Amino acid sequence: MALIVQKYGGTSVGSAERIKAVADRVIRWKEKGNNIIVVVSAMSGETNRLLDLIAQLSDNGSARESDVVVSTGEQVTMGLLSLALEAKGCAACSYTGTQVKILTDSAYSKARILSIDENNLRADLNQGKVIVVAGFQGVDETGSITTLGRGGSDTTAVALAVALNANECQIYTDVDGVYTTDPRVVRNARHIPKLALEEMLEMASQGSKVLQIRAVEFAHKYDMPIRVLSSFDEGDNGKSTLVTREEDIMEKVLVRGVAFNRDEAQLTISGVPDQPGVAYKILSPIADANIEIDMIVQNVSSDGSTDFTFTVHRNDYDQAHGIICQLADNLRARECGGNKNIAKVSIVGVGMRSHAGVARTMFETLGKENINIRMISTSEIKVSVVIDEKYLELAVRSLHEGFGLDKEQQVLVD
Amino acid sequence: MALIVQKYGGTSVGSAERIKAVADRVIRWKEKGNNIIVVVSAMSGETNRLLDLIAQLSDNGSARESDVVVSTGEQVTMGLLSLALEAKGCAACSYTGTQVKILTDSAYSKARILSIDENNLRADLNQGKVIVVAGFQGVDETGSITTLGRGGSDTTAVALAVALNANECQIYTDVDGVYTTDPRVVRNARHIPKLALEEMLEMASQGSKVLQIRAVEFAHKYDMPIRVLSSFDEGDNGKSTLVTREEDIMEKVLVRGVAFNRDEAQLTISGVPDQPGVAYKILSPIADANIEIDMIVQNVSSDGSTDFTFTVHRNDYDQAHGIICQLADNLRARECGGNKNIAKVSIVGVGMRSHAGVARTMFETLGKENINIRMISTSEIKVSVVIDEKYLELAVRSLHEGFGLDKEQQVLVD
Repeated sequence: MALIVQKYGGTSVGSAERIKAVADRVIRWKEKGNNIIVVVSAMSGETNRLLDLIAQLSDNGSARESDVVVSTGEQVTMGLLSLALEAKGCAACSYTGTQVKILTDSAYSKARILSIDENNLRADLNQGKVIVVAGFQGVDETGSITTLGRGGSDTTAVALAVALNANECQIYTDVDGVYTTDPRVVRNARHIPKLALEEMLEMASQGSKVLQIRAVEFAHKYDMPIRVLSSFDEGDNGKSTLVTREEDIMEKVLVRGVAFNRDEAQLTISGVPDQPGVAYKILSPIADANIEIDMIVQNVSSDGSTDFTFTVHRNDYDQAHGIICQLADNLRARECGGNKNIAKVSIVGVGMRSHAGVARTMFETLGKENINIRMISTSEIKVSVVIDEKYLELAVRSLHEGFGLDKEQQVLVD
Repeated sequence: MALIVQKYGGTSVGSAERIKAVADRVIRWKEKGNNIIVVVSAMSGETNRLLDLIAQLSDNGSARESDVVVSTGEQVTMGLLSLALEAKGCAACSYTGTQVKILTDSAYSKARILSIDENNLRADLNQGKVIVVAGFQGVDETGSITTLGRGGSDTTAVALAVALNANECQIYTDVDGVYTTDPRVVRNARHIPKLALEEMLEMASQGSKVLQIRAVEFAHKYDMPIRVLSSFDEGDNGKSTLVTREEDIMEKVLVRGVAFNRDEAQLTISGVPDQPGVAYKILSPIADANIEIDMIVQNVSSDGSTDFTFTVHRNDYDQAHGIICQLADNLRARECGGNKNIAKVSIVGVGMRSHAGVARTMFETLGKENINIRMISTSEIKVSVVIDEKYLELAVRSLHEGFGLDKEQQVLVD
């Protein structure tokens, strides 16, 4: 009997009617002979309602208590979906993160999963029950409720799929999969039926909003296939995107898609004496503050000093800026600065590994549009540039066209 | 250092502003040198919002899953109040029923508390923290969330006060104490500054809405004084009602107040062959269905058969009616019937113990108004009658005046 983990996002469970539709879908999958674990988000709007209440009471409140409040959103949904399933004659049992025992660290509001206790879930599955788990939450060693950060329900789903060795992890959302870029920016963006986990990882980390990056990392690490589907499709045969191992994908393409991100901010500490260990000295207090760093760029030094630039989430900018300005003195840096009005644009594709010239085409395309590149960073399967935010849409559209993503993709044969 | 348990009801925490006012009050009590445990209800309207969602998904849903949903109301409040306290510089820590480990049985939606683990709370109190506990909820042996039934936050507060040996249990509500009867029915109802736990027990069980009966039972059993106060009073010197041991009350009166209840329904199984064990046979399936019975009346039998009448909460009427009609055949009863349009009116006072004639005055007063009495039941300190619901207000007003409760009370000296 196959085990499928399904995750339904906020809009998919946004009303009693939508929850009933989810129950119908779950029952159809169950009746095909599958065991089902469902992970649910808060009903759309609920998390914001709770965050608004929190903001009314506290400017910079205890993260522990914020998590206590915010985690109720998913708890409500899990109970309601279980009720809907039972009303339709399908045995179900709900679990909070605490009840499963999804053990996390104590980094409230962005906790990381340490382990999952599968015993209770297995017992309920063996009794033929559908299991409904509150996404986005866990419990730390002291029994305090933790949340995994925005979008963390995807991570819950993948982590459960891995822990219980599921056959597939289905992420139901309000779109029917991954596109070559955001269709709101490029109208003729094309649907991608299948892509590699590594590509998805780069697409997600570069800003595609379909899947949360930590969920994809988790899936990549444990080879767990993820299928992205729309909960708004009638029936179960609509379009979807399967995110799976590179080996399982026949059609490799040079560039799979164009990703972008406008939630970042750039920080620079310049004129730092170029000595071994300087990068560590700069980044370790940032990491200690639990601020995630995305791009890091350091160029070769001239006159014995170097400039060090990195990007963080825009929400963390002020805190990170405070930290590096304090550091600047100790490091005898010339100055520290930053910029919030930037955006990052990336091209992603496993085909790049064996084909040169992709970066050159990217820079050429942007140059033709007179878009100045502020930072460049590359990996095996992606090239990212940081540009002024105002050029973002123009950059994405020209790259999408420049790499022919609006047309039937050219498949690489070697 | 004194330990005070305070409970704030739904209207007391009905908005961010109200929660801030509660935080201010808690801090004032703390600054007087007390240790404080706060028990909170859901924000007013929230429980009904959740019940409405549940009703949209399930006609007669799993009580386990309903409790999962409903219990989030108190969890939100406890987090918000903790945030408000911390924003005002007061260290606080919140606890769900699961986190305290308020162990209950598994009677979802009306669970009973079995034990309270005080260890974690003690540790936090010793660190000077204010503890904020979600009322109305517990956890059963399997780790499932349970709720204690409507008004159960009072029970949580008293149970915590008893478990931690508190000096006083303060119940903050939207009224400033107990009155001789409901001021909405009798405008010149008088405030009672002090009454005996036993009187409160009868007042509460007879329908005064200020305190939940189980909370008073708990307090009575363990001699825990309860003070009822209004969270809408500015400052902390407003009126209040102290509910305490009879021995601690100097002024005993004949009749303390008039209580009433329109949430009941009456069930009768008549013409039952009068044999030993018949009452047990009737009531035990009702108890098995977890339906609470209030009054029970059985009169002496004539012609070898007897009529057996009891009252239940009106919500339980249909279920109870079904049960006794099924029984009627087995018991060879003549018929079973019932009536939903009844109300119960009671007079309560510890002075009755030693003074006859109170019941006679009651019946005389009702008779003068032409109100027919359907059932009578008495205890040491109260007399209750069941009448047609339409006479309720008239009965309460005439009894309130008949016993002189609108005037300065006559104090009994022996």
